[in-house]
Amino acid sequence: MDVFEAIRKRRSVRSYEDKPIEEEKLKRVLEAGRLAPSAGNRQEWKFIVVKDRFLKKKIAVSANRQNFIAQSGAIIVGCGTECDKIMTCGQYAYTIDVAIAMAQISLQAVEEGLGTCWIGAFREDEVKKILNIPDKVRVVELMALGYPAYVPEPTQRKKIEDIVFYDVWK
Amino acid sequence: MDVFEAIRKRRSVRSYEDKPIEEEKLKRVLEAGRLAPSAGNRQEWKFIVVKDRFLKKKIAVSANRQNFIAQSGAIIVGCGTECDKIMTCGQYAYTIDVAIAMAQISLQAVEEGLGTCWIGAFREDEVKKILNIPDKVRVVELMALGYPAYVPEPTQRKKIEDIVFYDVWK
Repeated sequence: MDVFEAIRKRRSVRSYEDKPIEEEKLKRVLEAGRLAPSAGNRQEWKFIVVKDRFLKKKIAVSANRQNFIAQSGAIIVGCGTECDKIMTCGQYAYTIDVAIAMAQISLQAVEEGLGTCWIGAFREDEVKKILNIPDKVRVVELMALGYPAYVPEPTQRKKIEDIVFYDVWK
Repeated sequence: MDVFEAIRKRRSVRSYEDKPIEEEKLKRVLEAGRLAPSAGNRQEWKFIVVKDRFLKKKIAVSANRQNFIAQSGAIIVGCGTECDKIMTCGQYAYTIDVAIAMAQISLQAVEEGLGTCWIGAFREDEVKKILNIPDKVRVVELMALGYPAYVPEPTQRKKIEDIVFYDVWK
């Protein structure tokens, strides 16, 4: 599957089959994250792959009780490990670095026939407690990963001319 | 080219040929950004495609005088347009949303035979002035885009076992 097809096929999947993810597939999905670029190639990130049913349920409760998260094959917990570095542009490096890695993960998942859903609605302090994550580490996003039980239709997008300018802001 | 190949082939390209990007290619690259997911599907982003030589030079000066940026076919300026929303996890939605869209752009670029480089080392206030970007808009990242004059070797990555944990932090 080419990149463009994966991008077009990607959905936010909120319903998963009760079916484990093959190790080979999970390996390539994680490799997609490992190979992502990061500011200064610092790679100050960790990805926790939560497959344990009990832990998934607890995380789902911390994530606004979105139960589909517990039904996924795994939750990928994207963490920044050195969270002080602010780039010249004013953004925290760890937030963007972890987001890029997880974006690569989400597209590789499509290629593997898996669905994903980005989750930003979670209580970080609770998730850190559940997974024994150290104080200084930040959890940037969660991502549900697994075999889709239901693949939704594409959601609406703004037109290209409404989001792209040439040369200067218009 | 499949997703995994694009991920493996992606480099941070810091040397570009003086060759314009075909409209068809640029269109698909931007479409890759347009189709990205965003928090609540808000799509609060704009992408400015800077091709004008004079503007590219001015931006390069604001970006720590990294001259290769001015040599690229275009600079994609990734902007967040509604920058107040903080997700439950504590992260700003716009930062992650723009990063995901630009990650998709960077992989589609590989498929088109183009190179990219993420740039976080720039003075946001200066770039905003150069491009006439409104006060409330944030510039999250710049991305150089164009035909590579030189494709670097892969950079070092941490081992998978050093960045992935299973179930809990270890």
